[in-house]
Amino acid sequence: MAANLHDIFMLFGDSITQGAWEPGLNGFGQRLSHVYARKLDVLNHGYSGYNTEWGLPVFEQCIAKTDEKHAPKIRVLVIWFGANDSCIKPSPQHIPLAKFVSNLKQMIDMIKSPESPRFSPETRIILISPPPVNTIVRKADLESREPPMELDRLFDVTRNYAEAVRILARDEGVGFVDIWTALWDAAGKEENGLAKVLGDGLHLNEAGYAILYDELIKTIGKDYPEVHYDNIGYVFPPWKDIDWENPAASMYINKRA
Amino acid sequence: MAANLHDIFMLFGDSITQGAWEPGLNGFGQRLSHVYARKLDVLNHGYSGYNTEWGLPVFEQCIAKTDEKHAPKIRVLVIWFGANDSCIKPSPQHIPLAKFVSNLKQMIDMIKSPESPRFSPETRIILISPPPVNTIVRKADLESREPPMELDRLFDVTRNYAEAVRILARDEGVGFVDIWTALWDAAGKEENGLAKVLGDGLHLNEAGYAILYDELIKTIGKDYPEVHYDNIGYVFPPWKDIDWENPAASMYINKRA
Repeated sequence: MAANLHDIFMLFGDSITQGAWEPGLNGFGQRLSHVYARKLDVLNHGYSGYNTEWGLPVFEQCIAKTDEKHAPKIRVLVIWFGANDSCIKPSPQHIPLAKFVSNLKQMIDMIKSPESPRFSPETRIILISPPPVNTIVRKADLESREPPMELDRLFDVTRNYAEAVRILARDEGVGFVDIWTALWDAAGKEENGLAKVLGDGLHLNEAGYAILYDELIKTIGKDYPEVHYDNIGYVFPPWKDIDWENPAASMYINKRA
Repeated sequence: MAANLHDIFMLFGDSITQGAWEPGLNGFGQRLSHVYARKLDVLNHGYSGYNTEWGLPVFEQCIAKTDEKHAPKIRVLVIWFGANDSCIKPSPQHIPLAKFVSNLKQMIDMIKSPESPRFSPETRIILISPPPVNTIVRKADLESREPPMELDRLFDVTRNYAEAVRILARDEGVGFVDIWTALWDAAGKEENGLAKVLGDGLHLNEAGYAILYDELIKTIGKDYPEVHYDNIGYVFPPWKDIDWENPAASMYINKRA
């Protein structure tokens, strides 16, 4: 069985999280895995197609209760939903805006409330807003399917969900990455321009993920510098720091208690 | 704290393992993280510069004892050393061939021996041979340093270490990826040709990692098909399988006991 030598950097979200290690994209999951190597284990809890309503029972199972021995600490928790919640009716993925916000708040409360059996004051929480949707590309994609489908997301609706995440993060005092605005700016504030950062109108391409990674690292550096990869040491020493005459003794120096 | 919902795919080795999520390389770590998403967590236990002598006390700490509750099962364990052990004297990384083999065997025994406190009969072990070394590129690299350094690895010596891993894997009845031979074949069996697959004469580039990934997946499919990603289900259901009227009830169906 695997010992929990590393604390955890958990990514919780939908397909944009699940696909963040995909070959050729240099996604933010992959890049976090790289820079936190030997420091934190980056766990992929991305669930393609999920909204917060389906994510909530999964989230509850992903977070161990405080009395579970040997469970590793979550140092950073990124929660990124909204791309599916903001689908419009009759999509089964649609979650009303107020319910979306209250589901996200439930996730935060599970970690931050002292009454919660999953209370974890040392966990740094970061919310990410859903990306803008390119309805031009999305519409063409859905119409080309067999059978053709109706457009399931609207630009302004997704923007409202993004704005709600911003307000929730502020009200809850947690970190926030405004990827909606960052991608919209990169698109020159034109829906057609979103093709630069979103492959299929929904999912980030390599350029989109590069923006996200940079914004996320900036947020960590600003709000939670203690969990920036530059400020977390290797669990085991660099090889040149090993006592070559008596290696085993030096292999424990950074081990967590 | 993080619950151990996923079993583990552990990569244990040196810098060629540690760097396997590096941007731009599509390394085998990243690609495993992608194909095993929602199935197994791929853990990076790569330690740059390490040989088996330094790796052994780390390995012992990475594997939980069988009486540790809540520690996740290791379904696949890849052990990949030799690139540093095969350094020649006076390099502090040098480990004599017999000692190298006995160190690897100790790691295997820790998992496979019923007397071991870390006995784990369900763990599938795969050894990887060290890659061939391009001494032409390596020599030029070391001579260009300030101060200049002597060549620290020899082509034939590394080949002997690779061959020893092959024999050990056969004798122990564990999986084996012969990356030495695969890369040597890709190089047209010419040291100069290794530039196609090894960036700096030691570390795999994107083409080298692509060969490794393919060989590793082939080995899993042949020796351990039960842990091939095609044969492991999602822990949580695809979103279209969720009972949309009663989601919470369907979010537990694949949960491990």
